Amino acid sequence: MVALREVEVKARAPLEHARSRLRELGARLVRVEEQEDVYFSHPCRDFSHTDEALRLRLAPGRVELTYKGPRRAGPVKSRLEVTARVVDAQRILEILELLGFKEVARVRKRREIYELRGVEVALDQVEGLGEFIELESRGASPHELLELAKRLGAEELVAETYLEMILKRRGSAASL
Amino acid sequence: MVALREVEVKARAPLEHARSRLRELGARLVRVEEQEDVYFSHPCRDFSHTDEALRLRLAPGRVELTYKGPRRAGPVKSRLEVTARVVDAQRILEILELLGFKEVARVRKRREIYELRGVEVALDQVEGLGEFIELESRGASPHELLELAKRLGAEELVAETYLEMILKRRGSAASL
Repeated sequence: MVALREVEVKARAPLEHARSRLRELGARLVRVEEQEDVYFSHPCRDFSHTDEALRLRLAPGRVELTYKGPRRAGPVKSRLEVTARVVDAQRILEILELLGFKEVARVRKRREIYELRGVEVALDQVEGLGEFIELESRGASPHELLELAKRLGAEELVAETYLEMILKRRGSAASL
Repeated sequence: MVALREVEVKARAPLEHARSRLRELGARLVRVEEQEDVYFSHPCRDFSHTDEALRLRLAPGRVELTYKGPRRAGPVKSRLEVTARVVDAQRILEILELLGFKEVARVRKRREIYELRGVEVALDQVEGLGEFIELESRGASPHELLELAKRLGAEELVAETYLEMILKRRGSAASL
């Protein structure tokens, strides 16, 4: 398995503040992109129970299919993540549907990606959810990630995925 | 859906003879490649009953994931086929396994692909199965394909897929 375990911290944070702190710290802006993430249900497995996810990410010039395994407990997120690049988004969508996978939600965001001493920092403006920072590293310790998140202005750690937040919002809207 | 319905004739035929007939008819050799096809079972659907297939084709410089729908009856094969190109074979294999798809067989062959007036003709040397020709077109009529197959030296039409032939051989070997 070439899969790597992702260690990640996510928090609500005002992006303008985080952006200027990153600049002060000497972070390098890697890229800015509009991402549309399509999430699927499994034909015979309840991902909300198994805590897995299947996502097709559509970004300009890049299409990626990602499997995410169950999260481990703790303030720092750790889960198996395997990503394969795909050439044609429409075709892979059709194949997934024909195999019984169903689209459950789309998450749209504008993401700025920075690199700071081996840590990837994403500033996310998520449609309908607000502003978040996400720190990810395969080298740094959980403690280091949490410290950096605080320095960038983290207001509240978030254990939920954007997908879960979107589904929850949809649920509350439906029960109004 | 951008998917196209494939119309196809497959037959056992000596390749040396077919090759020289193709040359006489003015066919163009498109490419020759070694292909390894990995077939999967579905996590909760019995493909041998639904007559579907999921295949990952590994060829030099090209990786393709293909869904095949149920075949329609008749000497000329017709089935829905959707193919998506993938960048990284190992990663997509891992994702499929994590989603519960299991590898059931590999079919290895040397394929020469010719083009003759809108018909794609493949000369296949299939490991463990022998020599076959496959004619495929999205324009020609079933009758035209069958006529061409005869001219190329078709000995016996084959309705089974290579996967089915491989599984059948394995079954007979197991029952010896």
